[in-house]
Amino acid sequence: MALILPALVSTLLAASALAADEKPAKGLTMQQVLEASKPSDWRSLDAANTLYMDLPAGRVIIELAPTFAPLHAANIRTLVRQKYFDGLAILRVQDNFVTQWGDPETEDAVRAKPFGQAKRKIAAEFTRSSRDLPFTRLADGDIHAREVGFSNGFPAARDTTAGHAWLAHCYGMVGAGRDNDPESGSGAELYVVIGHAPRQLDRNIATVGRVVKGMELLAALPRGTGPLGFYEKAEQRTPITSVRLAADVPASQRTELEILRTDTPTFNALVESRRNRRDDWYLAPAGHIDLCNVPIPVRASGAAPRG
Amino acid sequence: MALILPALVSTLLAASALAADEKPAKGLTMQQVLEASKPSDWRSLDAANTLYMDLPAGRVIIELAPTFAPLHAANIRTLVRQKYFDGLAILRVQDNFVTQWGDPETEDAVRAKPFGQAKRKIAAEFTRSSRDLPFTRLADGDIHAREVGFSNGFPAARDTTAGHAWLAHCYGMVGAGRDNDPESGSGAELYVVIGHAPRQLDRNIATVGRVVKGMELLAALPRGTGPLGFYEKAEQRTPITSVRLAADVPASQRTELEILRTDTPTFNALVESRRNRRDDWYLAPAGHIDLCNVPIPVRASGAAPRG
Repeated sequence: MALILPALVSTLLAASALAADEKPAKGLTMQQVLEASKPSDWRSLDAANTLYMDLPAGRVIIELAPTFAPLHAANIRTLVRQKYFDGLAILRVQDNFVTQWGDPETEDAVRAKPFGQAKRKIAAEFTRSSRDLPFTRLADGDIHAREVGFSNGFPAARDTTAGHAWLAHCYGMVGAGRDNDPESGSGAELYVVIGHAPRQLDRNIATVGRVVKGMELLAALPRGTGPLGFYEKAEQRTPITSVRLAADVPASQRTELEILRTDTPTFNALVESRRNRRDDWYLAPAGHIDLCNVPIPVRASGAAPRG
Repeated sequence: MALILPALVSTLLAASALAADEKPAKGLTMQQVLEASKPSDWRSLDAANTLYMDLPAGRVIIELAPTFAPLHAANIRTLVRQKYFDGLAILRVQDNFVTQWGDPETEDAVRAKPFGQAKRKIAAEFTRSSRDLPFTRLADGDIHAREVGFSNGFPAARDTTAGHAWLAHCYGMVGAGRDNDPESGSGAELYVVIGHAPRQLDRNIATVGRVVKGMELLAALPRGTGPLGFYEKAEQRTPITSVRLAADVPASQRTELEILRTDTPTFNALVESRRNRRDDWYLAPAGHIDLCNVPIPVRASGAAPRG
């Protein structure tokens, strides 16, 4: 009686791999697309823009998006290199919305952790120019933007008439919390989407990256019972052991991952496999896919069935 | 530095309520819409179609949708009245997808809990006729269906050309897990959506209701580490203390709730308040809203500021 659906992060199977030109009439499943992928369909994470957030329960890995929020990414790197996040905590978990972390003492000028070389205010990187930006467009449209698709591995939207592009608030996307002042989101307080995509946040806040591994450590936390899901007692907060740039971690302690590129025919085939599911369970293939329902597969480096 | 957004279930404030005809030029916030609501904008839950699923951590309340899945709702009521779910367990939690519960011994003919008067197979109630169905249409469209909106308080889609309507798999919607056989979803194994709406399930499975209270008890559970998010060890499962129909529970043990009706001008005003957020935090109001981002407010009965 099990409801059948593939997990988002797939384990690749060596058996029954299809050659790239072998395409059954009824189309490929996602598993078949991944099995037929080439090494060049995958990319490694850039260690200089990858964060390891270590929690007592395990490691969360975040890929920063300097193409969209270069100033925020730089400020976050500065904070991380100063060990700013070490010993801070997860402050807020609001069901079907966000998990948020930062300094519990941020309102207290004396007890708040110093920013050191990092900036407290940054220009509002809520959109960027759509010019010269790689963009793999999805065919099925979107109710919020003229075009949606993927850019450098992130779900994104663009309006080439206005000349703007921006990251979309899909599940797992990370943003920089801010006050009413648009420049107040320094990156010292971050949130991740843990529910249905709150696309109303798009173009209203700096989206700085995406959780590529460990989402379950942030999404399964107890919801806070205070206003906006903030925890009411200090002991309810999950402590952050440390946040490090992958580039600053010894090779033996790194988690080496590869992500499926979003600018390849293989990715297009993956999207098609999700638009129209091929397994026997589905009676009425959707024929369409929402931007935030497209999985971006991740695998351990070296997981390819054959070199 | 707090990211500001209203909680989905609002506490009504008696102060600063607006009269229904008092409409500021810039529009109303959701809070203002709710404060201005009339008692007739709210409905009580039908006790004969309301389930109380009591877990060790608290009560989950599910409103069944007999308008869309009458046979499934009837079978679930039969199972509940036989105390079928008492002592069963949550079997599966797959991140960004579903939490699922039922009989851990379902595959074992000897140890499986008997169905008693309930049916093991039910006609596939995946869509119904769109004729004579109340429907409050949303203006902003949808990539999956010709029309989306709300019917009897549930997010729904319809295609009047084909003559069909169906419930949409939004966050909190409850469905009847099935095998490849379309008639195998008896309602004895149920799931709830805990992530971005998996709309590809629409019209492929019987959607039988919605969690109206207690989602955090199902969404914050540890994710299962087996295939499809099933728990690998029996002790990882959350036990189900009992499932009861509200109608079968003494009045003193009921949780009396009211839900905002979805067929009123007040609901339309609420949708508009969410399409274009009015608080000072938003710089770029979305101007559109996705079906699954429309909140359906719930309050304790008698919570209205004035009779």
